[in-house]
Amino acid sequence: MSAKPLVLICYDLLTPLRGAIEAQGYEVALSWEMPAERAAEVRAIVHAGEAVLTPEFLTSLPNLGLIANVSVGYDGVDVPWCRAHGVEVTHSEGLNADDVADHALGLLIGGWRNIVAGDRTVRANTWNNHARLSPGPGLKGRKLGVMGLGHIGEAVAVRAQAFGMEVAWWGPNPKPQARWPRAASLLELARDCDILVVACRADASNLKAVSVEVIEAVGPQGMIVNVARGSIIDEDALVAALKSGKLGRAGLDVFAQEPTPAERWADLANVVVTPHTAGGTTNSLPLMIGQTFENLKRFYAGEPLASPVAA
Amino acid sequence: MSAKPLVLICYDLLTPLRGAIEAQGYEVALSWEMPAERAAEVRAIVHAGEAVLTPEFLTSLPNLGLIANVSVGYDGVDVPWCRAHGVEVTHSEGLNADDVADHALGLLIGGWRNIVAGDRTVRANTWNNHARLSPGPGLKGRKLGVMGLGHIGEAVAVRAQAFGMEVAWWGPNPKPQARWPRAASLLELARDCDILVVACRADASNLKAVSVEVIEAVGPQGMIVNVARGSIIDEDALVAALKSGKLGRAGLDVFAQEPTPAERWADLANVVVTPHTAGGTTNSLPLMIGQTFENLKRFYAGEPLASPVAA
Repeated sequence: MSAKPLVLICYDLLTPLRGAIEAQGYEVALSWEMPAERAAEVRAIVHAGEAVLTPEFLTSLPNLGLIANVSVGYDGVDVPWCRAHGVEVTHSEGLNADDVADHALGLLIGGWRNIVAGDRTVRANTWNNHARLSPGPGLKGRKLGVMGLGHIGEAVAVRAQAFGMEVAWWGPNPKPQARWPRAASLLELARDCDILVVACRADASNLKAVSVEVIEAVGPQGMIVNVARGSIIDEDALVAALKSGKLGRAGLDVFAQEPTPAERWADLANVVVTPHTAGGTTNSLPLMIGQTFENLKRFYAGEPLASPVAA
Repeated sequence: MSAKPLVLICYDLLTPLRGAIEAQGYEVALSWEMPAERAAEVRAIVHAGEAVLTPEFLTSLPNLGLIANVSVGYDGVDVPWCRAHGVEVTHSEGLNADDVADHALGLLIGGWRNIVAGDRTVRANTWNNHARLSPGPGLKGRKLGVMGLGHIGEAVAVRAQAFGMEVAWWGPNPKPQARWPRAASLLELARDCDILVVACRADASNLKAVSVEVIEAVGPQGMIVNVARGSIIDEDALVAALKSGKLGRAGLDVFAQEPTPAERWADLANVVVTPHTAGGTTNSLPLMIGQTFENLKRFYAGEPLASPVAA
């Protein structure tokens, strides 16, 4: 048995963090190659919220006490199950809000102002000067609906205001301190906005909450941007609405399945798609990794965690 | 001879405006089909600044008194020659500053955060999750250098501040009211910024002002965005620097030659290119056309013009 605490990685995306975790004084095992007889040594998992950890798998680690998510969000972790089994869960709440909001605006402007489509036009040598006299709408005065006014939603709203957009929001809980009006429901928000930005945490309560009804309420002239999680949108309905014209545009960094199959978007020039890159830059990733290490350190020292998930 | 004043269009891009101009009570002629014997009837041209009107051509219109540019900018019009020959020049100063600034931020974020390249990645089915752990820099804390703090430059600066960027600027004339510090020179601005946004009016004084020296001062980690005119950048030097890595990225809506040849950008994944669409949306284009009609009306009525070019 190693003298160093054994930290488990269960998501191959995080394998490159192995050396950095080891440099903090831990031994690292990868779940897909760890011998079963070492399972009892594992007290902590370093994880990212978008990957699912099943209770079946977690049950195989009898001494597990912490799931430390490098990510912001922990949708792949069954928090009630963890609570019931004495497993603490942490994540990097708020640490990449600026980056995600920047990316959301990039998707928004990139779609609304045809930046991405325009780049394809120039590269395809199909520049048509006359199209310049049939322009689309600008951003000033457009209504932005923010679904989820957390750190990210607020950062999106602040940026959008600098473009002269009108902001409203909806979330399940009223926020008396919010600077912007809260819609009566998600559907009301969708009906009364030009651009809906999905910026909430994903959980069981909002699975496919952006339904066909919400999508069609945003409408043929509207746009939906998602920088949260693919699970929040009924993606089949979204694709159908984009194809039929019942929704005007979309900008998506997250998908029902990741990587998303390219053929799903092949015919859709009115969509900007990025490979789940909103949340990480050299600004935020070191903060998120540092926060994870702080949580590990406190866990092994028996101290209160730095960023536990809210009760 | 027509009873209606004869207004000339000399730039084929503007041909679709013919009906709208006629609806204002004018006859419209197109320069490439007007019989030479009607030249003396022409007292006004409706134009857009990026197209060149040579003194040779203008001399063929002996009674010309007004060149009314629908555009913001009048770089294709030789204003000193016009002044010397009693021809007034108007343009749509300031009327599309929000749209152009929005587009500049779209190019900026689209390049800096790999939105456009990411869209190509997803569509090419080459999504590589592991690239997410080798991210690029964020926007917060980056230094923005604005070349030309007019209506557009100021609108760019206000937006960039909402992203947590630090703003500085340079222009040939000090602006004591400016909210941001003025660099000692364009080269100093380039040396001390991460992202240089070209937002000035083009004229003879700034032809290729963004020289190889300025481009390399922005540097391998830096980005240049141009929403002004292609003439302001030494485009051959820009392409060479992007190819060699001496400049990191670019976002370009304007080019030395328009349409720009696609092959010029084919190998450059670090560039976002759009077909000169920054300046027009359904927000601004009606204002710009309306301003042009107002200038025409005042000209024929002998009244002071609404938006003459500055002396």
